[in-house]
Amino acid sequence: MKVFIASIGMSKVGDLWDKSLVELALDAGFKALNKFNLKPDSLVIGNMFSGYACNQEHLGALIADSLGLTGISAYKVEAACSSGAAALASAYSRVKSGDSDVCLVIGVEKMRDMSSKKASNALAMAESAEFTQFFGANFISLNAMLTRYYMNELKVSREELAYFPLLAHKNAKNAEHAQFRREISLEDIKKAPIIADPLGLLECSPIGDGAASVLLVSERKAKEIGEDNLVEIIASSIATNRFSFYERNDMLRFEATERATNQALEQAKIKLDDIDFVEVHDAFPVVTALSLEAMGFVKKGEAPKLANQGFFDLKGELPICTFGGLKARGHPAGATGIYQACEAYLQLTYQAKSNQVEKAGIGMIHNVGGIDTTAIVHILKRNRA
Amino acid sequence: MKVFIASIGMSKVGDLWDKSLVELALDAGFKALNKFNLKPDSLVIGNMFSGYACNQEHLGALIADSLGLTGISAYKVEAACSSGAAALASAYSRVKSGDSDVCLVIGVEKMRDMSSKKASNALAMAESAEFTQFFGANFISLNAMLTRYYMNELKVSREELAYFPLLAHKNAKNAEHAQFRREISLEDIKKAPIIADPLGLLECSPIGDGAASVLLVSERKAKEIGEDNLVEIIASSIATNRFSFYERNDMLRFEATERATNQALEQAKIKLDDIDFVEVHDAFPVVTALSLEAMGFVKKGEAPKLANQGFFDLKGELPICTFGGLKARGHPAGATGIYQACEAYLQLTYQAKSNQVEKAGIGMIHNVGGIDTTAIVHILKRNRA
Repeated sequence: MKVFIASIGMSKVGDLWDKSLVELALDAGFKALNKFNLKPDSLVIGNMFSGYACNQEHLGALIADSLGLTGISAYKVEAACSSGAAALASAYSRVKSGDSDVCLVIGVEKMRDMSSKKASNALAMAESAEFTQFFGANFISLNAMLTRYYMNELKVSREELAYFPLLAHKNAKNAEHAQFRREISLEDIKKAPIIADPLGLLECSPIGDGAASVLLVSERKAKEIGEDNLVEIIASSIATNRFSFYERNDMLRFEATERATNQALEQAKIKLDDIDFVEVHDAFPVVTALSLEAMGFVKKGEAPKLANQGFFDLKGELPICTFGGLKARGHPAGATGIYQACEAYLQLTYQAKSNQVEKAGIGMIHNVGGIDTTAIVHILKRNRA
Repeated sequence: MKVFIASIGMSKVGDLWDKSLVELALDAGFKALNKFNLKPDSLVIGNMFSGYACNQEHLGALIADSLGLTGISAYKVEAACSSGAAALASAYSRVKSGDSDVCLVIGVEKMRDMSSKKASNALAMAESAEFTQFFGANFISLNAMLTRYYMNELKVSREELAYFPLLAHKNAKNAEHAQFRREISLEDIKKAPIIADPLGLLECSPIGDGAASVLLVSERKAKEIGEDNLVEIIASSIATNRFSFYERNDMLRFEATERATNQALEQAKIKLDDIDFVEVHDAFPVVTALSLEAMGFVKKGEAPKLANQGFFDLKGELPICTFGGLKARGHPAGATGIYQACEAYLQLTYQAKSNQVEKAGIGMIHNVGGIDTTAIVHILKRNRA
């Protein structure tokens, strides 16, 4: 059974002090529900740490009831920062199996009601409590070590890597839902305070509140509402790697991303060349580079150089992070994977306005938990009669 | 595509100070994996609050890697105390849709490394942080209010309700994996300290550590390993209710359980009469009674009386909680739903020893999050050539 995205909804990412976790989810959820007069029979929530941050679990039933959908099936899915995509993958299977006809998926995260220290601890729960957190390493310091290793091994400079945040901010400029809508310069990046050497403030994806949603429908429902406005999910693949990157034989090989990409291409029966743009999980520049290299779009160590030549720009060979990615659209952990799906939907239905990728027919979205620990790839296709 | 349980694994429930969250999951996981030489292609974890209790999220990839299954698909599912059954339902859809051929499901919860107060707060996350936790109500005090209301409205005495914990302890006596393997008397129940009037210590399901697992296989895999030893999942249904019981029109109507049961019977194409035993979510006696009444097995207000007549005993009309249920086998929140599936598997494959239900052909399992807020019903069937 084919599975389609019928509609989407996004809240603006940011410091949303005036909105609770549930209010955020409702904002995004109602936007997706308002397009068609379809009552979902199920809800899947993507969220990483509402228990830790908001003393609230059981988001499935809570949000279903708050949306006025009391009675329907509901649960939450978690896979660290890939919780959004994991929820999407779980919902995809529910619809594909026939267990659901209309399934609402909402990714939501409330991060700004915590202190920065607590938010940092929350994100560190993506890493092992017993072996990594225990020794004081946090998620940024681990990525800093990987960045240094990548730079040394592959002879890449910090300035070259810095193109990724520059591009992200450029793409976010016209994205209404983005957290940071201003361009930055290489000078800004270099002047920013160092968070964990060599990563400065503007080289790290930010902390923010946000929620995004997609409404999935079965082939049968899609026919009812008119299939040619919809986006088809032609592949959904989850893969994992050794849990911590320091346990891996080759720390510069993102095997989970490699595996998820290859499995997804096989499912979709397409080649890498058929992909028109990628929403890549650009949590840190080194993650963007290693991911694009693992997917096979570019050779190992070449992503930063090609980036500086405009390869990944909106008008380049392979546009990435078309609305600013994690870095500039923002990264409300468990919501990010759904923001990516929404953005791909906008591209594939030609509603991306000044951010529109030309000839967008097939898009790939890539959401990661930990440092390539869980990698989830979906391939979406424009569906036109 | 049909979905089967090929094998199971359970750790003993209890105060497992010497085992970490991951070690518990491995214990249960390896037991299920050891029966057949099958490598799972996916893992689904059921867990309610590992972030809050153990500073650890991302259990999917962490446990996959720890099991030596690095690379496979993995994520966690949460729906409060029905997290185990929600994980099972999600895994069921993965297999049914063809997205997975062999899927390991592990329910795991580590509750005893916390103070009692913190454990109580953890469980209260099943209720609304903004409207219920905020006013100081915890999960037991809410159930106490419901118990009092049930007793008053339906003219049921505390002594009548007490039969449920008595029966649970009786059934757990010979259950190797149970937390409390001793019989208790009505006298014991009345002498026990009051936790929240009218609920005493022996009328509340306990806090414990535990993990349980089931290995799901597709029809195709089932044929490879010999279908006639397996248990088929013939229905999987999730339903929700108004989030908090005080918001409901009729607080004594467990609509989520009613809905999930009816949907499951429809899916399985069977009648209530065809069910030979029920693993019911007996968190508190009132929950057991209202659930059995909502399922339709007995009339409103009659469950306690019938219980006292032996209706729900192992040799009664409709055996329930055949290995002691939440009350005596124990209730490691996110693991409970998987323990129930394991117990039903033992019954349906005639491995329940002195706890064996006669002529066990079809069993139902019922796992709940909150107070009938999320109700999940699976129907399992013995598969014999």
